[in-house]
Amino acid sequence: MAKQKKEAFSDFGLGEKSSSEGFRALNKDGSFNIEKTNIPFFERLNFFHSLVTMKWSHFFGFIILGYFIVNFLFATIYTIIGVENLTGTQGMTPFEEFMEAFFFSAQTITTLGYGRVAPLGLPANIVAATESLLGLLFFALATGLLYGRFSKPISKIRYSDKAVIAPYHDINGFMFRLINPQKNELLDVEVNVSVSMKRENSELRDFHILDLEREKVRFFPSMWTIVHPIDKNSPLYKLSEDDYHKKDFEFIAMLKAFDESSGQMVYSRSSYKPKEVEWGQKFVYAGQRANGKTLIDVSKINESRDAELN
Amino acid sequence: MAKQKKEAFSDFGLGEKSSSEGFRALNKDGSFNIEKTNIPFFERLNFFHSLVTMKWSHFFGFIILGYFIVNFLFATIYTIIGVENLTGTQGMTPFEEFMEAFFFSAQTITTLGYGRVAPLGLPANIVAATESLLGLLFFALATGLLYGRFSKPISKIRYSDKAVIAPYHDINGFMFRLINPQKNELLDVEVNVSVSMKRENSELRDFHILDLEREKVRFFPSMWTIVHPIDKNSPLYKLSEDDYHKKDFEFIAMLKAFDESSGQMVYSRSSYKPKEVEWGQKFVYAGQRANGKTLIDVSKINESRDAELN
Amino acid sequence: MAKQKKEAFSDFGLGEKSSSEGFRALNKDGSFNIEKTNIPFFERLNFFHSLVTMKWSHFFGFIILGYFIVNFLFATIYTIIGVENLTGTQGMTPFEEFMEAFFFSAQTITTLGYGRVAPLGLPANIVAATESLLGLLFFALATGLLYGRFSKPISKIRYSDKAVIAPYHDINGFMFRLINPQKNELLDVEVNVSVSMKRENSELRDFHILDLEREKVRFFPSMWTIVHPIDKNSPLYKLSEDDYHKKDFEFIAMLKAFDESSGQMVYSRSSYKPKEVEWGQKFVYAGQRANGKTLIDVSKINESRDAELN
Amino acid sequence: MAKQKKEAFSDFGLGEKSSSEGFRALNKDGSFNIEKTNIPFFERLNFFHSLVTMKWSHFFGFIILGYFIVNFLFATIYTIIGVENLTGTQGMTPFEEFMEAFFFSAQTITTLGYGRVAPLGLPANIVAATESLLGLLFFALATGLLYGRFSKPISKIRYSDKAVIAPYHDINGFMFRLINPQKNELLDVEVNVSVSMKRENSELRDFHILDLEREKVRFFPSMWTIVHPIDKNSPLYKLSEDDYHKKDFEFIAMLKAFDESSGQMVYSRSSYKPKEVEWGQKFVYAGQRANGKTLIDVSKINESRDAELN
Repeated sequence: MAKQKKEAFSDFGLGEKSSSEGFRALNKDGSFNIEKTNIPFFERLNFFHSLVTMKWSHFFGFIILGYFIVNFLFATIYTIIGVENLTGTQGMTPFEEFMEAFFFSAQTITTLGYGRVAPLGLPANIVAATESLLGLLFFALATGLLYGRFSKPISKIRYSDKAVIAPYHDINGFMFRLINPQKNELLDVEVNVSVSMKRENSELRDFHILDLEREKVRFFPSMWTIVHPIDKNSPLYKLSEDDYHKKDFEFIAMLKAFDESSGQMVYSRSSYKPKEVEWGQKFVYAGQRANGKTLIDVSKINESRDAELN
Repeated sequence: MAKQKKEAFSDFGLGEKSSSEGFRALNKDGSFNIEKTNIPFFERLNFFHSLVTMKWSHFFGFIILGYFIVNFLFATIYTIIGVENLTGTQGMTPFEEFMEAFFFSAQTITTLGYGRVAPLGLPANIVAATESLLGLLFFALATGLLYGRFSKPISKIRYSDKAVIAPYHDINGFMFRLINPQKNELLDVEVNVSVSMKRENSELRDFHILDLEREKVRFFPSMWTIVHPIDKNSPLYKLSEDDYHKKDFEFIAMLKAFDESSGQMVYSRSSYKPKEVEWGQKFVYAGQRANGKTLIDVSKINESRDAELN
Repeated sequence: MAKQKKEAFSDFGLGEKSSSEGFRALNKDGSFNIEKTNIPFFERLNFFHSLVTMKWSHFFGFIILGYFIVNFLFATIYTIIGVENLTGTQGMTPFEEFMEAFFFSAQTITTLGYGRVAPLGLPANIVAATESLLGLLFFALATGLLYGRFSKPISKIRYSDKAVIAPYHDINGFMFRLINPQKNELLDVEVNVSVSMKRENSELRDFHILDLEREKVRFFPSMWTIVHPIDKNSPLYKLSEDDYHKKDFEFIAMLKAFDESSGQMVYSRSSYKPKEVEWGQKFVYAGQRANGKTLIDVSKINESRDAELN
Repeated sequence: MAKQKKEAFSDFGLGEKSSSEGFRALNKDGSFNIEKTNIPFFERLNFFHSLVTMKWSHFFGFIILGYFIVNFLFATIYTIIGVENLTGTQGMTPFEEFMEAFFFSAQTITTLGYGRVAPLGLPANIVAATESLLGLLFFALATGLLYGRFSKPISKIRYSDKAVIAPYHDINGFMFRLINPQKNELLDVEVNVSVSMKRENSELRDFHILDLEREKVRFFPSMWTIVHPIDKNSPLYKLSEDDYHKKDFEFIAMLKAFDESSGQMVYSRSSYKPKEVEWGQKFVYAGQRANGKTLIDVSKINESRDAELN
């Protein structure tokens, strides 16, 4: 039972039916090749989450559009009430009057309130008082959204584009490299690597956790080469490049760390398919000493040279 | 002692006296059937927490009512001071004067300040300066509240409505299913399942933790079937459906995960009573491959078919 | 060494020199009887922390005072520049002019801007533009402060005023009770209890962790009786009430939990001195069943009755 | 393999090539002597992080400059449109007109809106409505930034400037001291100490974790002396002061704690080079009892006296 449990654990929650050839469960950018359908509208809805995670261009488009629509609606209301209830308006034609109402609305919802145009009488005043309250709540929300967007800890961990099979002591190892290109310090960094492979004559896939030379570092200021030694206990033991393709390997890497600048945990994921694994290559050290500092050249993360395998 | 301790641990803090028949300690939605009484007013009070957790309709009702009351109070003060201290007022009747004061107050508290009406003289100016400060603090609070409401990580984990007793390898298992219908990724997901049952001829209840086939997954992008194998060590071993009712079982499920989008831990709970456990049923796989993606049909979470028990 | 380490660990960082009689290292409210002196001003300073943790009355006093002082300063500047640079001022006497400047400043810093009074010319405009920027930053800060004050997770865990020595199975136990009187759910609640006692003929104190019947509960919706069984391994074994006083006992309780509503960890501490320990008392169950709910009477947390000790 | 792993773990992610003499991997303030180069611009960019972590003087300089530039740009636009489209402007010369436009812009972007000057006609109104929206978003962002700056948990843990080799029971120990000079309570404090040394006749360095007398305390209200007993298992066993220099030792200390006031984890680091280690010194107790309180004199953190080594 205990053994079975460990195996089970290693499937990372991806299920066991993902067996078609060439299939990638986890994309390079860490997103999953899984889509949920038929979600009840109410459960799927997460307005804030969408506004916080959408692209900046969409976000600003959304705000500008909303600003325009709301002002258009209120301008319509003021026009219906009658622009004569707004003092100081200078519009002659209906279009000019509507424009006066439109910009009066803009001045009201932003609580700008120049006062050249001002509401007079009960109806116009009620609408204006309501609009300014709405404006404040709207911008309270925008404040929260902007803060939410900016303060979200984004881990931009870079993985080497390829993994390599390289000599390691007197055996070989499966290796790839990581670096945190940003200034924020990552602490208590933990890495897990797992491999999923097709089971022979079956629709199912097997999952194996790979033992690493080092699974955790206390800090991570430099470039880190993740090494899985291919020893007797490794599921990769004595497998050839060809076997990787036949068994449709997928290496899944997962990183977990504490981000000092945001005070939160960050996670990162990536994957390697057999075609992204180079055999008989060895990563080149990307550091250099200068002025009492160690300089790490981030652009060299993929740099490797030929190395004879054991 | 050690054994006793383990048992004790499994009572989940629900106490041992919850023994009446048909009683449910934990509701389906994860809330407890427990109410605290005689709480000193001061200790119970948590203004912010209430405003953050109340329904949206109540929240907006609360804000609109507060806006109205505050403006009403300030309008009264301005009227007492004398509307003649507000330049530009055009009210004739007392009602019109009060209305002018009311909307002047609204324009002041929102810091709109058209200026058609403006305070003149010391008393009116003092009140207006105070009101605008109050307004800013009030909307500062509203900003925080809206952010608090929106950024609160809400785990909407869905549990299957029913649990099943299904064949599992060469024995049977107690199973139910989970899915996260939202887009946010849940990581390091941990599940605990426990059962509480009436002790014979006693007011007390016993609690047992159920061993699971898998207690933790690193990520949770798909649907997850929680399985408790009913082997010799299971407290459910050799019990019939009838026994479940007699002993007034309550299965308690608890989930704990890291929510990547909010950077916080989320918890979720649910429970199953004997009438929500179907015997001789097996959950149907809800996935499907399309365009190189796995599609998971959320609406099929409860779908099961007949299966002969071992 | 290992043993020594465990002992050392149990001193909770309170040091070993706290030996004077009747001394209390930890106050009932969880604060420490320790004060740091000679802290360099710069290291001690934590403006935001002070403003977030000070009393509400002080906080509002601080804001109102700041508002007054800032307006006073700006009014002085406007007066020096010359009130004739503010259009629409109606003051005659210097005092009236200063008041106009004062309220103009208030209307500017809150971005109210009625416009009855408005700046004219370069100097007044520069000051006004600066003041309005300052005002926005000031209220941005106030927004953050209010949010910080309100969102701070405050654990109001209540400890029973007294601990008791009560019969427990066939031995006795050291017991006290806990309840969370608020609505927020506490999860994964962990309790540690430790005792510190004077070493004979020495200035030093010994620290011992007390084994508990239950150290952790998954949820905590009810009242929880913490029990330390006084068995052979207990440092309290065969000690009399008199010994507690002689050795100047201090029981230190510490609680750690996840607060579901704020998504953060909360901590709580309290202590019991010998005079707060009642011998031969037993806590009375504070629950009651009504309408299918368990009602827990918070006010009964200290209720106990006589019980013969083993 | 297991041994190898442990060793590897202790290298703290600093790499193994940092071998030049007198090199310091970790600065006293906890920053690393490592610089990353050739980072793609887009990956390095973290606007919010920069604005939250930059110095206050830079931050305010940035805001004031931004305010000036934005107003300058909008003033230019209003001037191009024609200042005659702003009612109430009193400028005669082009410079005066530009100034009117500049301050009108300031009044618009802060949503102050006195109204002495107000936009008239479509183009001016469109620009003003856009500017006020921009202003609100800009100050929404400033609110978030100020909150982010202030709420960031800053651990100001102070390390003693020097470490000492002092007698410890019947052996010696490597010791240094820590204190938290601030009011916020630190809980579950964990300390790790490691030493890195040059390998003989090699470019590589070895890393060793040092066993501590106490690695964790539950709370940390006082001054804490970290002690590594130099026993047979210590990598420092039988090494002389001279050896420390020859092997170019670097002691790396790391602290991790829960900050009760912010509800977040805080980390702190420091290092000691051989010249910062004093031999035959012993730290002096910095506490004192007064009015039932223990007073800890923070300024005495470095105070030591001669002590004969074992």
